[in-house]
Amino acid sequence: MPKSAIRTVCKVDLGKPASEQPYLHNRWHPEIPPAATIQDGETVKIECLDWTGGQIKNDDSADDIKNVDLTRVHYLSGPFAVTNAEPGDVLLVEIMDVQPFEDQPWGFTGIFDKSNGGGFLDELYPSAAKAIWDFEGITCTSRHIPHVKFAGLIHPGILGCAPSQEVLDTWNKREGELITANKLDREVALPPQPLNVHAGSADPTTTEKVGREGARTIPGRPEHGGNCDIKNLSRGSKVYLPVHVPGANFSVGDLHFSQGDGEISFCGAIEMAGVITINFKVIKNGLSDLGLKSPIYIPGPVEPQFGPGRYIYFEGFSVDQHGKQHYMDVTVAYRQTTLRCIEYLRRFGYSDYQIYLLLSCAPIQGHVAGIVDIPNACTTLGLPMDIFDFDISPSAAAAAIPAAAKKLDMGSCAFETGRTEGEVVTTAGKNSETSFGGGLNYKE
Amino acid sequence: MPKSAIRTVCKVDLGKPASEQPYLHNRWHPEIPPAATIQDGETVKIECLDWTGGQIKNDDSADDIKNVDLTRVHYLSGPFAVTNAEPGDVLLVEIMDVQPFEDQPWGFTGIFDKSNGGGFLDELYPSAAKAIWDFEGITCTSRHIPHVKFAGLIHPGILGCAPSQEVLDTWNKREGELITANKLDREVALPPQPLNVHAGSADPTTTEKVGREGARTIPGRPEHGGNCDIKNLSRGSKVYLPVHVPGANFSVGDLHFSQGDGEISFCGAIEMAGVITINFKVIKNGLSDLGLKSPIYIPGPVEPQFGPGRYIYFEGFSVDQHGKQHYMDVTVAYRQTTLRCIEYLRRFGYSDYQIYLLLSCAPIQGHVAGIVDIPNACTTLGLPMDIFDFDISPSAAAAAIPAAAKKLDMGSCAFETGRTEGEVVTTAGKNSETSFGGGLNYKE
Amino acid sequence: MPKSAIRTVCKVDLGKPASEQPYLHNRWHPEIPPAATIQDGETVKIECLDWTGGQIKNDDSADDIKNVDLTRVHYLSGPFAVTNAEPGDVLLVEIMDVQPFEDQPWGFTGIFDKSNGGGFLDELYPSAAKAIWDFEGITCTSRHIPHVKFAGLIHPGILGCAPSQEVLDTWNKREGELITANKLDREVALPPQPLNVHAGSADPTTTEKVGREGARTIPGRPEHGGNCDIKNLSRGSKVYLPVHVPGANFSVGDLHFSQGDGEISFCGAIEMAGVITINFKVIKNGLSDLGLKSPIYIPGPVEPQFGPGRYIYFEGFSVDQHGKQHYMDVTVAYRQTTLRCIEYLRRFGYSDYQIYLLLSCAPIQGHVAGIVDIPNACTTLGLPMDIFDFDISPSAAAAAIPAAAKKLDMGSCAFETGRTEGEVVTTAGKNSETSFGGGLNYKE
Amino acid sequence: MPKSAIRTVCKVDLGKPASEQPYLHNRWHPEIPPAATIQDGETVKIECLDWTGGQIKNDDSADDIKNVDLTRVHYLSGPFAVTNAEPGDVLLVEIMDVQPFEDQPWGFTGIFDKSNGGGFLDELYPSAAKAIWDFEGITCTSRHIPHVKFAGLIHPGILGCAPSQEVLDTWNKREGELITANKLDREVALPPQPLNVHAGSADPTTTEKVGREGARTIPGRPEHGGNCDIKNLSRGSKVYLPVHVPGANFSVGDLHFSQGDGEISFCGAIEMAGVITINFKVIKNGLSDLGLKSPIYIPGPVEPQFGPGRYIYFEGFSVDQHGKQHYMDVTVAYRQTTLRCIEYLRRFGYSDYQIYLLLSCAPIQGHVAGIVDIPNACTTLGLPMDIFDFDISPSAAAAAIPAAAKKLDMGSCAFETGRTEGEVVTTAGKNSETSFGGGLNYKE
Repeated sequence: MPKSAIRTVCKVDLGKPASEQPYLHNRWHPEIPPAATIQDGETVKIECLDWTGGQIKNDDSADDIKNVDLTRVHYLSGPFAVTNAEPGDVLLVEIMDVQPFEDQPWGFTGIFDKSNGGGFLDELYPSAAKAIWDFEGITCTSRHIPHVKFAGLIHPGILGCAPSQEVLDTWNKREGELITANKLDREVALPPQPLNVHAGSADPTTTEKVGREGARTIPGRPEHGGNCDIKNLSRGSKVYLPVHVPGANFSVGDLHFSQGDGEISFCGAIEMAGVITINFKVIKNGLSDLGLKSPIYIPGPVEPQFGPGRYIYFEGFSVDQHGKQHYMDVTVAYRQTTLRCIEYLRRFGYSDYQIYLLLSCAPIQGHVAGIVDIPNACTTLGLPMDIFDFDISPSAAAAAIPAAAKKLDMGSCAFETGRTEGEVVTTAGKNSETSFGGGLNYKE
Repeated sequence: MPKSAIRTVCKVDLGKPASEQPYLHNRWHPEIPPAATIQDGETVKIECLDWTGGQIKNDDSADDIKNVDLTRVHYLSGPFAVTNAEPGDVLLVEIMDVQPFEDQPWGFTGIFDKSNGGGFLDELYPSAAKAIWDFEGITCTSRHIPHVKFAGLIHPGILGCAPSQEVLDTWNKREGELITANKLDREVALPPQPLNVHAGSADPTTTEKVGREGARTIPGRPEHGGNCDIKNLSRGSKVYLPVHVPGANFSVGDLHFSQGDGEISFCGAIEMAGVITINFKVIKNGLSDLGLKSPIYIPGPVEPQFGPGRYIYFEGFSVDQHGKQHYMDVTVAYRQTTLRCIEYLRRFGYSDYQIYLLLSCAPIQGHVAGIVDIPNACTTLGLPMDIFDFDISPSAAAAAIPAAAKKLDMGSCAFETGRTEGEVVTTAGKNSETSFGGGLNYKE
Repeated sequence: MPKSAIRTVCKVDLGKPASEQPYLHNRWHPEIPPAATIQDGETVKIECLDWTGGQIKNDDSADDIKNVDLTRVHYLSGPFAVTNAEPGDVLLVEIMDVQPFEDQPWGFTGIFDKSNGGGFLDELYPSAAKAIWDFEGITCTSRHIPHVKFAGLIHPGILGCAPSQEVLDTWNKREGELITANKLDREVALPPQPLNVHAGSADPTTTEKVGREGARTIPGRPEHGGNCDIKNLSRGSKVYLPVHVPGANFSVGDLHFSQGDGEISFCGAIEMAGVITINFKVIKNGLSDLGLKSPIYIPGPVEPQFGPGRYIYFEGFSVDQHGKQHYMDVTVAYRQTTLRCIEYLRRFGYSDYQIYLLLSCAPIQGHVAGIVDIPNACTTLGLPMDIFDFDISPSAAAAAIPAAAKKLDMGSCAFETGRTEGEVVTTAGKNSETSFGGGLNYKE
Repeated sequence: MPKSAIRTVCKVDLGKPASEQPYLHNRWHPEIPPAATIQDGETVKIECLDWTGGQIKNDDSADDIKNVDLTRVHYLSGPFAVTNAEPGDVLLVEIMDVQPFEDQPWGFTGIFDKSNGGGFLDELYPSAAKAIWDFEGITCTSRHIPHVKFAGLIHPGILGCAPSQEVLDTWNKREGELITANKLDREVALPPQPLNVHAGSADPTTTEKVGREGARTIPGRPEHGGNCDIKNLSRGSKVYLPVHVPGANFSVGDLHFSQGDGEISFCGAIEMAGVITINFKVIKNGLSDLGLKSPIYIPGPVEPQFGPGRYIYFEGFSVDQHGKQHYMDVTVAYRQTTLRCIEYLRRFGYSDYQIYLLLSCAPIQGHVAGIVDIPNACTTLGLPMDIFDFDISPSAAAAAIPAAAKKLDMGSCAFETGRTEGEVVTTAGKNSETSFGGGLNYKE
């Protein structure tokens, strides 16, 4: 009695606009109609677009990154109704596999332009940049960041069940209040946006409603998970998701070949299109039985293992690059930690933009170290030495080795047309090397 | 030609006040005289007090925690001059071993009273509490948190070289500005404090100066490290420390038998007295050769290994327990993540205070997951299942297992005299279970 | 400048007899003509049959195992000529990926009948048996061995370069001498065999020669590797292979989804057809530069990690089941170790045949422990507890837990037509439980 | 209610002959009187001599190794009676800690002379040699094998419960039969030996009986474990030992700072004196409840972790160094595997004797790979690259790197008086490099 083959419940068409494909959608809303129904206990395959919906090309220019249309991203596959699932249940999602499409064995990491998306370090590195990664089996390399190679801890950036109307209203209220109160000169949250809304196979009336009140897919949210960008939620992981509507209405997308903790450049993982294989199980009454307010997960047993002694750990504190002391601010501390790593790797001949891209997508460990010793939060960032094909360790011959490494050709990442590494580096380098004393108006 | 025995350069006397021991000090200042001189390349043993300088007893009352004198803590061993070390060099410190004293095989984890020290969750858990941990070889157990046992990833909470006068001035200026600008109703930083200053063997004039301008030892600081509380800076680790004064003037203290990422209850690691064995090497001109602004380290090869699939990961977001949306605030997100874990473990019969203590000292993994998806930062907390002697996994029989576990006797942690578990839990439970809707005035 | 797609240098046809496919062969011989040429530095895909060449079906009978035609197995893909490779060089083979065919997501583990193939424990377990494994992403389960699930450490059982005529002559001479000297009542080695020889695209004269003198593919051999069945020679591994003929003439086959150390049931890994992606590099003069007489390899960084404390280790010694003392015989010791594990797992309701199959293919660790303490060699076998979905640990309530587990339905593996679990178990059980005192004539 | 301190049940006196210390013994026999009684559930400390009973000195001559008196070795601490333990029970022994004595921070690895002890490779390396290892915390280094450093996976080589008279009779019978049948020109087992018997505090009559029939402590044995030399039976391990006599009469000794799989040079681990901390629990009726015929164990969670990609694996087959084919002989295969590793490391300037010593005590992984492919058993040996302070990887520049490494001063291990590295190496090198064609009469 051989087992029957695994059913594919969602096929995507890479040659067709995402907006015309009825199994995709780009908002969280309870009324987006299910794309298919999955049995409680069933394993299925689900195809997914990359998170830009195919806007980024495998070439050597970052013009596509600079001009990306952020109203047409994060097309999720689904939603999928699961039999038996009711509000109050937990949907147990076991990720059996994630793969790129066989005929598209590449992905990309991007730094968005500060004026169109930005990222964690956009005050220092405001320009658009891009690296293309080629997949060879489980590993990847990039012509834009030479002498680096690592195995992907492949995972979906986004998964979650649809909010109920009540949950959705909560989101819109609390994020609206943040927007209203905002005094920073940058966007702090994204309100509902009718432009380019895609509500799957919904009728026009529903689509209009989804555009008016549907939650954007950029942030993760405590009630359902969503865009959590958790780097080890990979193959073999079991995720426990709160169910808010009958049928659960599960969606998934934003596949990553690899990501570093923080996904700092925003478009920071190695973004790819592909297929994810998932097993679904409903845990009745799971929300209260498990005491669950937010998703939990158990990682799979298969992760790249470098050995603890093969990491260089950088330390960062909540003192920003202008020398200003912040109070127990982990966000500031983690930004400083990434800058320490950039300064370290810069000595080997990489440009800051290359390193910024690399820290976004390589399997770096970002830890909260100390969070109680006023006024300084301390975070650490572990960089695996073995992803480089030359020695980056801080050995005694500290000076000699980088000199040798510098003779390696580190090439360049992709920039927008007309801009070269030199120009960009000059700007960024000045800010971060002159003792943080420049005129840079960087708000932490 | 047998190797000669390892020299002990600092002995402490557990029966004598720390303030009377000349090899100890409790401020960072360039003029505290070296307690001993160590050769470049030498390995030595250094004895250390626990961070409260012996104020905490191995008993079942938290009165000592509640009334701890925080002007008499963090007595560091040293400073030690290292031959050859000059400003601009890097001191490579290899931690060969850390051990509790053989005749004092126990340590403690404390929750400070909100009015005397506080901690990461002090708005919700304002009372003092304590757990004593007994060491049996490499593992520890606590009569105050039954059914838990784990191996220590033993490490020093504090290590660093003395600041130069210039570095010290920078600290005092920037922390002073934070204090001046403070509008929170809590202390945000600790200014220099002459009361109970201990400057080692300094003469009265120097001691007075150290009291007036010496930096407090509570926070870690980017220029030298200090109180970083990094859980895997354990045996076998190599730490690269910036040198700011001739001789480096290295100090160490605050030994931990084990700690969780964040050390959330402030007195949160398993604090202990003991002896640390360190090898010292000077890397000439290391600061510029390594591009170092803050310490870096490479962990040792020996860590407890549970396997990735033996962790439950909790997710938290920058929405606080009152439902307020914060902008990309990792500190808020990590606090929420710890609360999700408390809610989960509570079902098994532990009190919130027991769990708060446990998360402070057990080897939990606190990660920055996503830090770019406005407005929500996302953090994760990995709890190793195998430190419990019963099954805490979220299996399908979600309800049945906690019921069985509840029949286990979970005892109680130590509270201040006259207070019982019941009283305390009621208060805390109310706040965290009533949908965060209470009148609690919790500032995140 | 996007990278070009990976070339497939060998396609197999699952619907056609292996003997008719010119890119396959089933002997080691220098004159088998290359199936394709690969550039030094190139990455290619190579399709492979399962090692029985498709003789085994996805059904519930072991008749196909019992009657397998062992003259028509081990069809290897290749040989492939690599440019630049000369005798004395080393071919560096990096395994980028191994995958089952998408439309054939299953494999099999077999116990050969003692009279047709046999295995490591065939005196005790002489009957044919089979388990089919279904693949769901990176994990597998079997309807024939319920309550077990694990991730595959997927790898090729066989890889190597063609022998030179001189090397081949050495093999035939030394194995011939063993056959000549044999006094056991079992085959000890397989001489050249013209029957069913397949020499790829060779002309009839060459094919006849290959049949007459070509080395069988069953054993691994020191000079080139071959059928080594190394369980962690998986994705990401780099293998250094001696080159004996111009062009290297590399062949590969016998793909395994997973295997335990020893592959004890002979057809013991999870055998499958699929595709392997390999990068080839020639290291000129590598044989002498590396001091290489046999292949070496560096495993990939990605392995299932259970944590050392999640294994039960069994110990075995060179005293056989009849109580006879052998002198420092690791083979005897390892056989005893596997029997200890069978006896342990039997208590949970599995049949001995199911366990024998399981130990062959699950990721068990087989170690040489002590090999110098006359007269007993000692070996250990580590069984990962987490591949079972119930608790197999030797907890204090030793008796109660197996009783509970026994209520689980453990089903049956597949046997030959007309034979049932009961019959087979009785026979085997009698031998191994009656203090090894029976009339069994088991030669160790 | 603080916990009381851990009781030491056995103190040894390093300045006094082992034969005069009543808590020690050097035979397995049911009538050796217990040295102390331990409560079921208790944790105690037990001091142990090194396995030669102090015969080896911390110096630079191997004369002590050459002339070691093998009738006065393996002094075990104990036996210890455990309350509640009866035949048929299992004694659960949890190893809480193992430490060298603080004032004796060193150990040794020896190669015994072929005529006095020998070892796994004694036909090739017949001379005595020695390396002294200095402990600095958890790591060790040797002046006799420079440029190597690793963390110890510290463990007891020997532990077990006393045999019953019946079990003892079985041992004497079966080992006697092996001795009787022996036709090799070497000892194959050690019969009872009255000379230098030490039966603890036994009266003369009992001592005489123990000498006449007591089992030697050299081999491990299936019924009780004993000298298993299992490298990861380290801190945190739980061992399940069969109980054969009332009170169990547990003994322990032969502490190792570190050992490689196989402990190939016989005196091969890093042998040391020290103290072991153990918790004892009796599992009533455990033998039948657990289906136990030999000990099992679960390793502790703390092991050095190098990452799988940081090992070089060598392959070996059952073809000996004279080119003779053996039938499925894992012992032959493992010997060849160790020789492949010696040949590899020799290129960096180490002598064969240094490498032989190193492979005995460094944490190498010795695996049974394939054991079913007639006629060749295949074993693998994983060598961790990170124990060396220079690069030993087989990189593309295969020739250049060893040349650089050769400029390192590799010194010499200790030899017997009058012998130098040169003489010894010449002999050994000749045998193993001349294609195994010499006149060496090596019996495998």
